[in-house]
Amino acid sequence: MTKPRASCLVPRASLAGFAMLAILPMLGGAQQPTPLQRRYQPTVDRIIALALSDSSAYQRLGELVDKFGPRLSGSESLERAITWVHDRMLEDKLDNVRIEPVMVPHWVRGKESAALVEPRAAPLAMLGLGGSVGTPAGGITAEVLVVNSFDELHMAGERAKGKIVLYDYPFPTNIPPFQGYGRAVQYRVRGAIEASKAGAVASLIRSVATNSIRSPHTGVMYYDTLYTPVPAAALSVEDAMMLHRMQDRGEKIVVHLEMEAQTLPDAKSGNVMGEIKGWQQPKQVIVLGGHIDSWDVGQGAMDDGGGLVVAWEAVKLLKRLGLQPRRTVRVVGWTNEENGLRGGRGYRDAHQNEDHVLAMESDAGAFSPLGVGFEGTPQGLATITEIGAMLKAIGSDRVTPIAGEADISPLKEIGVPTIGLDTDDRRYFWYHHSEGDMLDKLDPAEMARCAATLAVMAYVVADMETRLPRVGVSK
Amino acid sequence: MTKPRASCLVPRASLAGFAMLAILPMLGGAQQPTPLQRRYQPTVDRIIALALSDSSAYQRLGELVDKFGPRLSGSESLERAITWVHDRMLEDKLDNVRIEPVMVPHWVRGKESAALVEPRAAPLAMLGLGGSVGTPAGGITAEVLVVNSFDELHMAGERAKGKIVLYDYPFPTNIPPFQGYGRAVQYRVRGAIEASKAGAVASLIRSVATNSIRSPHTGVMYYDTLYTPVPAAALSVEDAMMLHRMQDRGEKIVVHLEMEAQTLPDAKSGNVMGEIKGWQQPKQVIVLGGHIDSWDVGQGAMDDGGGLVVAWEAVKLLKRLGLQPRRTVRVVGWTNEENGLRGGRGYRDAHQNEDHVLAMESDAGAFSPLGVGFEGTPQGLATITEIGAMLKAIGSDRVTPIAGEADISPLKEIGVPTIGLDTDDRRYFWYHHSEGDMLDKLDPAEMARCAATLAVMAYVVADMETRLPRVGVSK
Repeated sequence: MTKPRASCLVPRASLAGFAMLAILPMLGGAQQPTPLQRRYQPTVDRIIALALSDSSAYQRLGELVDKFGPRLSGSESLERAITWVHDRMLEDKLDNVRIEPVMVPHWVRGKESAALVEPRAAPLAMLGLGGSVGTPAGGITAEVLVVNSFDELHMAGERAKGKIVLYDYPFPTNIPPFQGYGRAVQYRVRGAIEASKAGAVASLIRSVATNSIRSPHTGVMYYDTLYTPVPAAALSVEDAMMLHRMQDRGEKIVVHLEMEAQTLPDAKSGNVMGEIKGWQQPKQVIVLGGHIDSWDVGQGAMDDGGGLVVAWEAVKLLKRLGLQPRRTVRVVGWTNEENGLRGGRGYRDAHQNEDHVLAMESDAGAFSPLGVGFEGTPQGLATITEIGAMLKAIGSDRVTPIAGEADISPLKEIGVPTIGLDTDDRRYFWYHHSEGDMLDKLDPAEMARCAATLAVMAYVVADMETRLPRVGVSK
Repeated sequence: MTKPRASCLVPRASLAGFAMLAILPMLGGAQQPTPLQRRYQPTVDRIIALALSDSSAYQRLGELVDKFGPRLSGSESLERAITWVHDRMLEDKLDNVRIEPVMVPHWVRGKESAALVEPRAAPLAMLGLGGSVGTPAGGITAEVLVVNSFDELHMAGERAKGKIVLYDYPFPTNIPPFQGYGRAVQYRVRGAIEASKAGAVASLIRSVATNSIRSPHTGVMYYDTLYTPVPAAALSVEDAMMLHRMQDRGEKIVVHLEMEAQTLPDAKSGNVMGEIKGWQQPKQVIVLGGHIDSWDVGQGAMDDGGGLVVAWEAVKLLKRLGLQPRRTVRVVGWTNEENGLRGGRGYRDAHQNEDHVLAMESDAGAFSPLGVGFEGTPQGLATITEIGAMLKAIGSDRVTPIAGEADISPLKEIGVPTIGLDTDDRRYFWYHHSEGDMLDKLDPAEMARCAATLAVMAYVVADMETRLPRVGVSK
């Protein structure tokens, strides 16, 4: 997941429905069921029971990630994985199974390394950042300037010239994880721009992570055409702290950095999808999914193979129960969320003439689900809260007014209500964009509850008589 | 720390004093102070106050580990670190500062890698095990047989022939960490012997760890002269689980393993030490310390730079307070704990004619101290419990009847009472023998409390009128 778009750069206060939350009545619990709840609770219970009866989501995710490994945009493994999902969706007998072509960025890491030269020779744990240029052949050897922040870099003035800048900004842990990420990730995203502006020859960051076993974390970074692109990489948290201590002791620090990274011409990829066609309003669509691409480390199991699979499993649950709703439910594996959002934008462009009733995504890790975040109208929020209350049995009945997912954000821009699956994200940034993002980080029972939550939301919204209201967009 | 000697292979039931614990009165707390406590509590409080007044232990550990990095036996960095500790002990004006020569094993890792060849090509996260032979030049490519246990390997019979055996034994987490370690570590220690016996060409283990961000953990392994030595390495927990899943799906797994590991002739090293000479009984010695060597990954900060430094800091606290006890207090940095215990044995051999009153070690991570484990006579245990109660203010007043430390185990064998510092070890096996064992895993305030605990134990035992009784050894 790359959240800067949805959770960092968009001001929260502008989100529709935010101000209305406080006046919403508390639903569910000991209250009398509403007519909607009376009508759907038996079906909801059947969905939950089936979801919890096996570990098919976890099994399918295991096949996907063990078979193809990580799936960076432009890679063969991503394209093979997309084809595999397509073929499995055909086997699942979903309707309109297809791959819609999208051109994606094609960045390749190549060989890379960083090593301490002074005060002693030692390898450093690093990962180049996605989108970075490589170093000149033979690498860069330069003195390091460690700073806490952009402010400290600006105060350093001339001292940054010719240096490798290292931002040692600690991930704030006194606020919720995604908020802490929003603050720390700016050094990954904009660090190379500011370093270049200051005359530095390369930009290093402390990995954006809340736990580390000397495990570096990659992620997207950008350049500004006004400034020379300089190579950018993440050191492990431990290495960044060590270099900072050395500087604090007055030691001269010299690092050698070698990166073969390069950006090739855009490559062919695609969004893969299938659906259950609505029996009454087939042109009204509830879309749900996750992104099938990942960074090129680990297995992209948590980010976001698991998100795609629980959305897919949600649709399969409806299929297995013979539940054909009034409207169409479509599951999508978006491509290129991580370094371009071309899948999410491509989907919006290809489908903007369709009538999307709701867009849902799971990209915060398919951990134990807590409920959903919804962005739409106050009336929509009331309905979603009403549906959410039916999920009390599996503890995912919480509804908050922030959806914050990337692939569905282009749909949100055109007025489509959105839902993000909220999960227990306490360990998300232990593994995010690191080699540690492998299948074992997820849990079969938790994934089953995620699938149930999405299935219930999708089914009820797709089947209820009144459609969820669109959001007025003033453009 | 390598615990098989002290905590796994020695039957617990044989430990002196174990059976007596239940009848010990509870001391401290709301009870009236004993004469010993009335005499020493004011001094204890001064020691604690000074320890908590700064972060000098943490600072010194930072200098040690940042300056020299990891310190494997036979390496130049270990010898330079030993010299540095010696010189700092001289600056601290300790008495009889010296390095006592010890010859140590000299194993070198060299380049190494493991890669999945089938069902798909992918690098695997690995670390060779200490003591392993290398592969033939060009490496070994062979099919993998994954087993849960030695029993499963034995049941496989002929199927292990010519294969690479992978033991996927999960670290038991329903028992205390060091007990879980004791069970899991046998696959690291004896895995290659059993694999070779079964006709396998190499031995892989699931890393012995309770957390993983695809971080492999090394450690010592042994061969049996009856069987051909085969290369032995640890995969990360994630990789071992992935290979196991592939086998469960009926897939053929082929791995390519390349290791340059070799054992060179024994190298010169030494135990470094300094002391505060006793004013009345200088030939009665209370020895405390940790091991200065480490594995060749991370910084050996937790295992066991921190243990050495808190013991050293304990002696410095007494020095700074001008406390010269009746008996001699000696701090030792033992060499070669990890792959040979030559330091601990060499110390015992060189000093067996001295009168050791107590031997203390901190090698379970200088985390938040809980108290001490003591092995000696029931009368000794009662005294240590009485002293421990004076540490209630810093929460390290617990006394248990298991010391379980490696470097002091040769002294235990000749009747010396022993103490191991007990700490909050819940994260110990997250970092143990991995690249993640770096300074940031420890905490200045926790280290200060460790130093205070050891200083109090050392001082009171060294100063009280009656000496701690020796244990009768029947040989």
